[in-house]
Amino acid sequence: MAALSFRLETTDPHSAARAGTITTDHGVIQTPIFMPVGTVGSVKAVTQQQLKHEVQAQIILGNTYHLYLRPGTEVLEAAGGLHRFNGWDRPILTDSGGYQVFSLAEKRKLTEEGALFQSHIDGSRHMFTPENVMDIQRSIGADIIMAFDECPPYPSEYAYARKSMELTHRWLDRCIKRLSETPDKYGYTQNLFPIVQGSTYKDLRKASSEYIASRNAAGNAIGGLSVGEPEEMMYEFTALCCENLPADKPRYLMGVGTPWNILEGIALGVDMFDCVMPTRNGRNGMLFTTQGVINIRNKKWASDFSAIDEGLSNETSRFYTKAYLRHLFVANEILALQIASMHNLNFYLWLVTEARKHIMAGDFNSWKNEMVPHLKQRL
Amino acid sequence: MAALSFRLETTDPHSAARAGTITTDHGVIQTPIFMPVGTVGSVKAVTQQQLKHEVQAQIILGNTYHLYLRPGTEVLEAAGGLHRFNGWDRPILTDSGGYQVFSLAEKRKLTEEGALFQSHIDGSRHMFTPENVMDIQRSIGADIIMAFDECPPYPSEYAYARKSMELTHRWLDRCIKRLSETPDKYGYTQNLFPIVQGSTYKDLRKASSEYIASRNAAGNAIGGLSVGEPEEMMYEFTALCCENLPADKPRYLMGVGTPWNILEGIALGVDMFDCVMPTRNGRNGMLFTTQGVINIRNKKWASDFSAIDEGLSNETSRFYTKAYLRHLFVANEILALQIASMHNLNFYLWLVTEARKHIMAGDFNSWKNEMVPHLKQRL
Repeated sequence: MAALSFRLETTDPHSAARAGTITTDHGVIQTPIFMPVGTVGSVKAVTQQQLKHEVQAQIILGNTYHLYLRPGTEVLEAAGGLHRFNGWDRPILTDSGGYQVFSLAEKRKLTEEGALFQSHIDGSRHMFTPENVMDIQRSIGADIIMAFDECPPYPSEYAYARKSMELTHRWLDRCIKRLSETPDKYGYTQNLFPIVQGSTYKDLRKASSEYIASRNAAGNAIGGLSVGEPEEMMYEFTALCCENLPADKPRYLMGVGTPWNILEGIALGVDMFDCVMPTRNGRNGMLFTTQGVINIRNKKWASDFSAIDEGLSNETSRFYTKAYLRHLFVANEILALQIASMHNLNFYLWLVTEARKHIMAGDFNSWKNEMVPHLKQRL
Repeated sequence: MAALSFRLETTDPHSAARAGTITTDHGVIQTPIFMPVGTVGSVKAVTQQQLKHEVQAQIILGNTYHLYLRPGTEVLEAAGGLHRFNGWDRPILTDSGGYQVFSLAEKRKLTEEGALFQSHIDGSRHMFTPENVMDIQRSIGADIIMAFDECPPYPSEYAYARKSMELTHRWLDRCIKRLSETPDKYGYTQNLFPIVQGSTYKDLRKASSEYIASRNAAGNAIGGLSVGEPEEMMYEFTALCCENLPADKPRYLMGVGTPWNILEGIALGVDMFDCVMPTRNGRNGMLFTTQGVINIRNKKWASDFSAIDEGLSNETSRFYTKAYLRHLFVANEILALQIASMHNLNFYLWLVTEARKHIMAGDFNSWKNEMVPHLKQRL
């Protein structure tokens, strides 16, 4: 089978936005794209059938840290990889676990060798290295796999940010070496995306982008943003990275973000996004809609029998009313979580699909400038 | 629109099992039937689309006690009734709330007038009477509504059981009177089913069945069973009630039960069943399958990549594997609850559909005798 390829189709004349097509052994992805997060092999509260047929997700994420702990690589290998295990037959991307080790694990220790950590589930001790993280991602079998990196917190001192970036680069070379020494496990090609780091320092971000670009990977990722810095700073550093990453490879901005973050990211030249926000905020009753943001628990929706979002064509968003969904939240019904998650994912996929249409039509930038304040409104 | 009608199609030559068709203003129901329980207007963890297209439920339940507390009759009336509120356009049955007042509410007091109780949610005080329970069920707007009854616990003293049954009969007459004085609210016909009580005393059950039969309702229910008495006793009293209830009206055995309880109930002449077991036990990882009972949390399923139930044709039961579902339960994923609930409902609806086929084919009783021990097996 073939390595991931990217075809750049259109570039917006008034911004850096692009439309393209990524081809993987599990099918094509039209960019810009949002990738729903399936942490432990399940996009929370959404079935694979709904994800495929209603949300029309083109690619989903899995988390190496979580999948390594549960169900573990033995079960995943016995299944024949994550696609077989969870039944998702379209592309999958797995992150490297680096971010989770630092955000979730109890007690961790960073060395040149890797990261020693204790599981957040049972306190058991584990070590992640660039080599074994590649091996674990071989066992999981995602189409796109991420390099093992350190994601420094915001703010970070310059000296720390630099040291951390250099470690991430050395780890990247070890990842590449390990991958070159190990075969694909399931008969299709796995593609490594390296990750730009460098915190919020321009020279570091530039240097890291250039180093990452020099590895000539099938696609490139921007990490270490959306970790607490001001939104304008996130945009500034996203732009800087995009400018220094090759135009003929897809660019992935990790862990971003709100609908308006995504539109601004697209305008800066980003092609791929992932975020837990649509599902996590959905489970808390926060809905993103074509008209703005809704807190569905609010009493004002108790007798509003209009559809959740008449601006969408997806069944869940049109079939259920605001009043019914509010009732389900107030009554603590599981169906509340299902409907809210589905709706928010419907909206996110609609958003990137619309963005793509406007890029193709050549009016993306003016559309984006109109949409951002509109989508931010609190209803 | 027209009152509920029942057409008896076949009676099994070797048992009291029957196949029939109930016609309501929201469509037909083929009996014997199992009715998924949608307590607060949602069958827990299952969408209305899944319930209709995959489970192929023909009728669902709502609970008057729960719907009265949340969202309340004001919202339900503003919506135009429960069908409009939750989007379920097939038949709905609501119980009268009597059972929940005694099983869920804090502090309750029974008088000739009705039942005084405090909400299990916020401790607020409420009174249910036969009259206002009819009014509430008018506001909910189910196709089949249940008489307000007292469900005595097991065991009950004879004197108490008799007094309670007589109260239930007086309350029934008040329900009938109230209904005759109030119009249908939403343009279709609501049909009252009275409930046989009498605890585990043959003369009381016989007297109650005869009293209920004399009211000449569109259908009749058997209450006060499956409340802790031995299974054989439940069958004995079900048989006694069925024998004394008219053959040309549907018979509904309330709150029953396991798959084998349902098959035995059908053999005794019951046409309608409801139970929280498929959804509640599903959420605890207990699966009913065509091969027997599974505790999916068990380690033995960790690497079993066979479908949840290959004996069914429903997508959820065939698409997901035992290993994947076990993983979802172990990882506390919401999708575990969704898949298990869907599967168990798929199985229950398959079971009654198969039963109907065998009644039509004339071999129900031998099939039932084969199936009961088979379905009870622990896998």
